[in-house]
Amino acid sequence: MDLIVTLQCQDQSGIVHAMTTAILECGGNIIENQQFTDPSTNIFVMRTRFETTQSQEVVSEKLNSGLGRFNPNLSIRLATQKKRVLVLVTKESHCLRDLLYLQELGELPIEIPAVVSNHPDLKELVANHGIKFIDQSGKEKSAAELEISNLITDLNIDLVVLARYMQILTPEFCANLSGRLINIHHSFLPGFKGAKPYHQAHDRGVKIIGATSHFVTQDLDEGPIIDQDVAHVTHNSTPEDLIATGRDIERRVLSRSVKDFAEDRIFIVGNKTVVFHN
Amino acid sequence: MDLIVTLQCQDQSGIVHAMTTAILECGGNIIENQQFTDPSTNIFVMRTRFETTQSQEVVSEKLNSGLGRFNPNLSIRLATQKKRVLVLVTKESHCLRDLLYLQELGELPIEIPAVVSNHPDLKELVANHGIKFIDQSGKEKSAAELEISNLITDLNIDLVVLARYMQILTPEFCANLSGRLINIHHSFLPGFKGAKPYHQAHDRGVKIIGATSHFVTQDLDEGPIIDQDVAHVTHNSTPEDLIATGRDIERRVLSRSVKDFAEDRIFIVGNKTVVFHN
Amino acid sequence: MDLIVTLQCQDQSGIVHAMTTAILECGGNIIENQQFTDPSTNIFVMRTRFETTQSQEVVSEKLNSGLGRFNPNLSIRLATQKKRVLVLVTKESHCLRDLLYLQELGELPIEIPAVVSNHPDLKELVANHGIKFIDQSGKEKSAAELEISNLITDLNIDLVVLARYMQILTPEFCANLSGRLINIHHSFLPGFKGAKPYHQAHDRGVKIIGATSHFVTQDLDEGPIIDQDVAHVTHNSTPEDLIATGRDIERRVLSRSVKDFAEDRIFIVGNKTVVFHN
Amino acid sequence: MDLIVTLQCQDQSGIVHAMTTAILECGGNIIENQQFTDPSTNIFVMRTRFETTQSQEVVSEKLNSGLGRFNPNLSIRLATQKKRVLVLVTKESHCLRDLLYLQELGELPIEIPAVVSNHPDLKELVANHGIKFIDQSGKEKSAAELEISNLITDLNIDLVVLARYMQILTPEFCANLSGRLINIHHSFLPGFKGAKPYHQAHDRGVKIIGATSHFVTQDLDEGPIIDQDVAHVTHNSTPEDLIATGRDIERRVLSRSVKDFAEDRIFIVGNKTVVFHN
Repeated sequence: MDLIVTLQCQDQSGIVHAMTTAILECGGNIIENQQFTDPSTNIFVMRTRFETTQSQEVVSEKLNSGLGRFNPNLSIRLATQKKRVLVLVTKESHCLRDLLYLQELGELPIEIPAVVSNHPDLKELVANHGIKFIDQSGKEKSAAELEISNLITDLNIDLVVLARYMQILTPEFCANLSGRLINIHHSFLPGFKGAKPYHQAHDRGVKIIGATSHFVTQDLDEGPIIDQDVAHVTHNSTPEDLIATGRDIERRVLSRSVKDFAEDRIFIVGNKTVVFHN
Repeated sequence: MDLIVTLQCQDQSGIVHAMTTAILECGGNIIENQQFTDPSTNIFVMRTRFETTQSQEVVSEKLNSGLGRFNPNLSIRLATQKKRVLVLVTKESHCLRDLLYLQELGELPIEIPAVVSNHPDLKELVANHGIKFIDQSGKEKSAAELEISNLITDLNIDLVVLARYMQILTPEFCANLSGRLINIHHSFLPGFKGAKPYHQAHDRGVKIIGATSHFVTQDLDEGPIIDQDVAHVTHNSTPEDLIATGRDIERRVLSRSVKDFAEDRIFIVGNKTVVFHN
Repeated sequence: MDLIVTLQCQDQSGIVHAMTTAILECGGNIIENQQFTDPSTNIFVMRTRFETTQSQEVVSEKLNSGLGRFNPNLSIRLATQKKRVLVLVTKESHCLRDLLYLQELGELPIEIPAVVSNHPDLKELVANHGIKFIDQSGKEKSAAELEISNLITDLNIDLVVLARYMQILTPEFCANLSGRLINIHHSFLPGFKGAKPYHQAHDRGVKIIGATSHFVTQDLDEGPIIDQDVAHVTHNSTPEDLIATGRDIERRVLSRSVKDFAEDRIFIVGNKTVVFHN
Repeated sequence: MDLIVTLQCQDQSGIVHAMTTAILECGGNIIENQQFTDPSTNIFVMRTRFETTQSQEVVSEKLNSGLGRFNPNLSIRLATQKKRVLVLVTKESHCLRDLLYLQELGELPIEIPAVVSNHPDLKELVANHGIKFIDQSGKEKSAAELEISNLITDLNIDLVVLARYMQILTPEFCANLSGRLINIHHSFLPGFKGAKPYHQAHDRGVKIIGATSHFVTQDLDEGPIIDQDVAHVTHNSTPEDLIATGRDIERRVLSRSVKDFAEDRIFIVGNKTVVFHN
């Protein structure tokens, strides 16, 4: 049995020792082990993957009893257990397509039980993959958010992904999904605020454009950054060229972040993330 | 004789034909030829390098008579003629060092007759390269700017480079040097405004940092962008790591921009640049 | 009417002038213009995009009469006319998928009338896009190549793309398609020869992997390189991780090359390419 | 006291636990902790940085007694203790310059007590930094290697860096310095074999060039790769342009590798390296 344990708590002496003691008591063999202490908050995070022949219940008991005194935020799960992801889209398909493709290929250890959209455009694409498409065209925001919240509960969703979802969600909705709601921002953050960032980038004559994935908080586009990437552009690039280049960056950054989330590699510490990349 | 011609004017029919006709009349053999029309301003720019056995006077006459009706901003110069560069520094040496090194190596076709600083720290470094060091420590801004302006005239300076020069220049000074004053900004633009951008980047938890070279206009950090570059960073990176990584990006971006300027590859069109990279 | 002219010939004095004269006589307005002389072969290449109200016949006549004395390889075509592409695949879909997606999105100015495969696996994917799938499973090489050759003629194919096609084509077949046959090589060239390059890369402990697109000649993997890209990897990367990372590089490099070909940006000069990137 | 412990041994159950137990017994507070098991050799490597108020002797005793049964290759040293580096050069200065600069800046935690060269060219540069320059011009290889070996002993050298050293060292010399001899190879490995790789790259028309740092073994250019980097080039790039671009890649890759070595981040496992990047 291959288990992934993640832990987050105030840094104190003895945490790593307590973790490794508990794992040893389960006859565990550590495969991956990463840790970090954030100097500004003194918060400690740790991710350990190990093999054991003990049952998950026994492991859970040992870890909880060995680590309980640190008051940790502790998660233990089977490495093979896939995260369940709800994807929200509007009209643009590039990010959704990449997620669907990589999931089918086995690169992304996730399940996508449903896709929600405020437009009907991507219905056929989603249907072709045998996935439920929930069309919220014309629905009022409060009704739409209520339906999404119910889906999250009913479908046992671990992560909600805004894959170029062009609706602003209410602060309450975002707060309820804190740490489980990822957005792909079509700009390098900090960057151009507001609409049409690629047109703004073109007007400003930038020589590099980028995209940023981040957790969504109540402050729009201000949540903890997960990943970023960029591409060089030139004076020859039209706004349309920037948009096309941007699409390729967006989908790569978002898919990478969903993979990191699905493998329990991302921790939120204050307004930042710790990402234990492979 | 190897000549570089640059031309900038409103786009009209027949410019390229007129240019190539004039060059043909000089018995010229075109080696490089690049052009661009900016769609938003309809401004046309062109850079042509060609070999000829005619004198520079004859070439100048032919080009001016052939192209005069387009009212161009026209420059003709020997490719071997080096641009004269005045470098302004404060305490940090990494950008200056790179310029000095690449210049001595022959990579940068420039001459540096003097370095100006508002601190004495880099005096020895500059002296070791046999270059005049003008120490403006304690000088008032108006006197300092006047001295720099006189140096620009006396030393026949083509370009002033702010190589981590930590003084704010007056709008008048910047306006007088329009198109001949390059700064390296220690951030990816658009980015963090104000002081200590690497600390701001660290606080925001960005996963990429960058640097931007740009022409200086009266609006601080808002002049036409010439070049940008970035590097990936992680949660492990301290502000000091970001500064160290930033130094390496800054010097590369600035040196590249000085090289492009020295080879007449940069055009200012509106608030943007056209850069005909090699 | 928006026309793209490409020209290739021995470098001589007056070519650019003759071209611009002919374009001026057609009332043409040059939008893009790029040229290069290869120093080792003295071959000159040029790509010019211009607008004109004249008919394509008139333009063709003017250009041929104006440029004929240089004995050029001259092509004139409507910028809106799409290149017709035949894609050859085996089992892996990532490159094909990207081509289909970008073509449908309008980013890639091509038509794909058919996809040929030596395996049935991708039949459904191709059919879903309304494209003819030619299954050559079990077919002998000579019969398969003959069928492909006939398709190229019948479907008026401009370019054949080997999108992870795992068959070795005969030298004759490759020779017949000289300059119209592009392959994506799943390695940085020069690199690991032979099979399983990602496993070789893993065994060698490389810290960067790459992919290379190139024209296919009779010497396997030795044809003119069109484009290359890379990604950083670490000791943590398993061969499977390298393959996954490689897939993303491969599809981007191949799609970019097909786009450059479709826009007449690629010239073969000796055993190298000149690519006038946008 | 800030200590760095590195450990390498066959992977077994309980190593991490034993390490953290020993550190806890020293009252240590772990700051960094990284580990990796190489699947093909089953070799386990670990790097731990921790603070303690105990003396280095006490720590050493605790760690050796706690970990001794795993038969590890164990190193314990003060994080502030600088590695002593001997640099070997020929005529080209770019790599040496970067090392000297970054060392003086405090970015590179090393001391450079001497520079050895088989040419006198860089004598003044080295002297300007107050460092001993050993000119081996005209010396026979055996005498030169003997002198270097004596220097390594006398100066208490931890690492020998070939910073564009254009001499082939004998297999015996390399074997004696196994794991302590780093070279910068002016090509992306696997790549062009033999002399003038940038000219070969130019002839082949590659679109990317690179550099590789590696440990030197008896097989020239075949030792474990430490780091690699690349830059994009075009058909416009002359061999001289490639060399200039290459210089910038070489110095960055080499300096990064020396930094990683100086911080005990590099492990040799079989013919590969594990590098725990910051």
